Amino acid sequence: MKIVVDAFGGDYAPSEIIKGAVMALNCEKDISLVICGKHDVIKQELEKLGCDSERIEIIDAQQVVTNDDIPTEALKSKKDSSLIVALNALKKRDDLVGLVSAGSTGAVLAGSIFILGRIKGISRPALAPILPTVTGGEVLLIDCGANVDSKPACLVDFAIMGSAFMKYVYKIENPRVALLSNGVEDKKGNELNKEAFKLLKQTSGINFVGNMEARDCLSGDYDVLVTDGFAGNVALKALEGMAISIFSVLKKQIKGFKAKLGALLMKNVFRGLKKKIDYNQSGGAPFLGVNKIVVKSHGSSKAKSICASILQVMQMQKTAVIDNIKASVAENEVEINN
Amino acid sequence: MKIVVDAFGGDYAPSEIIKGAVMALNCEKDISLVICGKHDVIKQELEKLGCDSERIEIIDAQQVVTNDDIPTEALKSKKDSSLIVALNALKKRDDLVGLVSAGSTGAVLAGSIFILGRIKGISRPALAPILPTVTGGEVLLIDCGANVDSKPACLVDFAIMGSAFMKYVYKIENPRVALLSNGVEDKKGNELNKEAFKLLKQTSGINFVGNMEARDCLSGDYDVLVTDGFAGNVALKALEGMAISIFSVLKKQIKGFKAKLGALLMKNVFRGLKKKIDYNQSGGAPFLGVNKIVVKSHGSSKAKSICASILQVMQMQKTAVIDNIKASVAENEVEINN
Repeated sequence: MKIVVDAFGGDYAPSEIIKGAVMALNCEKDISLVICGKHDVIKQELEKLGCDSERIEIIDAQQVVTNDDIPTEALKSKKDSSLIVALNALKKRDDLVGLVSAGSTGAVLAGSIFILGRIKGISRPALAPILPTVTGGEVLLIDCGANVDSKPACLVDFAIMGSAFMKYVYKIENPRVALLSNGVEDKKGNELNKEAFKLLKQTSGINFVGNMEARDCLSGDYDVLVTDGFAGNVALKALEGMAISIFSVLKKQIKGFKAKLGALLMKNVFRGLKKKIDYNQSGGAPFLGVNKIVVKSHGSSKAKSICASILQVMQMQKTAVIDNIKASVAENEVEINN
Repeated sequence: MKIVVDAFGGDYAPSEIIKGAVMALNCEKDISLVICGKHDVIKQELEKLGCDSERIEIIDAQQVVTNDDIPTEALKSKKDSSLIVALNALKKRDDLVGLVSAGSTGAVLAGSIFILGRIKGISRPALAPILPTVTGGEVLLIDCGANVDSKPACLVDFAIMGSAFMKYVYKIENPRVALLSNGVEDKKGNELNKEAFKLLKQTSGINFVGNMEARDCLSGDYDVLVTDGFAGNVALKALEGMAISIFSVLKKQIKGFKAKLGALLMKNVFRGLKKKIDYNQSGGAPFLGVNKIVVKSHGSSKAKSICASILQVMQMQKTAVIDNIKASVAENEVEINN
């Protein structure tokens, strides 16, 4: 199985990206990689790591898309960038199954839509990070920022895609799909939500369990959280923000011998906690609704997270997630037409 | 200074509410209270607490508004409820300065608008909790749920009210007002936000510093976070949710002698942390934009939190927050008209 890696996207590109790629190769014998970006630099980095694996192919691309680029313009003006070259290769070559990029979110999403194309029946692909729950499971938050203005019908697409994802990739029999709202009651929500609620109730292919509140995102009571991209982004970042704040306050409060000793004894507990709540450690956010697998790694990804994202692509491919999403979407369309 | 307390709103009403009221009386010699609700029950509770203060007046109200009531209907059908009687007293009597209620949010907000009336120039009053920041300060989040569908101009009102609140009540010279968005760049946001951004840029009475992300809600970089009620509610509850999740995971991870000893040594640190991040401990959320002071306490408020809410009303009255908000709103209107 061959996976494409954009070596020049992200705050720690290219060295951490390439390090993560090599890490993934060492983890999994079944995969090989196509690394896109400046050929010489990639070569050098691989040499530094003592890696001359035959399972690595380099495709040269001299430009780099940055966060300062306007995504849609970068598609035209930076055709020789690592991201665009990677996406074009992914589209053209049947042997390539998916892409990992830690580059500009806007550019990765826009590029994926324009180059790979949308799955038939999906008007708006969505970014869907997987968050760890307090009960030790996972929950998919879809959409968390690909679409800042969504129509009610888009939220139904998100629900169908998210449901298929959790069913096939995470083997959850009948994923509980909930709508992120300002209360659990059926009538809660803004206009968009109220309309989406009605549509979700009528969508037979999913297990819609009703509205939920952001307080319960990580409770483990749900498998798929459906939301428009704006509110989803706010939820995701607020969750992150509180985690950052708690660790920051905690650090400041540890003063004096007693507290310091306590913290030392609890070192493993804190390490475990950090690992448990930092969803970036377990990979990136799948971009669902395009014709091939795309995983967007966090911009601040280091090698470990890139490696996890590559393994995520592998898992998604092994469970035929694209075909399964396509089938779920098609099934729903047939029902609507009948 | 006389403050009204709705004794029959909240999960722990009436006993914890009345306990909190007595606590506030003991804290502050300058205040007296009007407690609304079933006269006999209130009398009994006060006796239990050994309180026969002359600074307490009881107004009888036999009905109770619950979370199951539809707010607008409760206004008509439950005229003898503790909440409605309290609001009517607050409206009619000049000696009463504000209300504290831990009852149904919808009923408190709807009742406040219908009975107390809106401040001239404010079409949509807003719920504005004050959150503690990691730098030891406070930030006001406005709106966090009073309006689930807002127009861009409403967000300008929120900014003006929030700014006046932080300036007068928290003595912040030039409050930094930011717009909650999905990125810090000027062009980020959904349609509502983009439009609001333009209007906020043109509003001269406030110190608008641009867009901010939910990740930085508690960073201490802002004094007022402006948002529509839906996104604000999502942000607030996601922040709460992550705090709950972290404590829950932490608890589970403390296993074995070493970790348990560490936790014991860190007891005060955790207590301090909990106190610091639990904004409910420091009172309730002011409901800004109506003609008198209203503080909505959390439904799960216990005595301490009710006491804090009463002291909050006192502080707001001492700093003439209503008059100051009125002046700020009027000033902005004059500018728009010129």
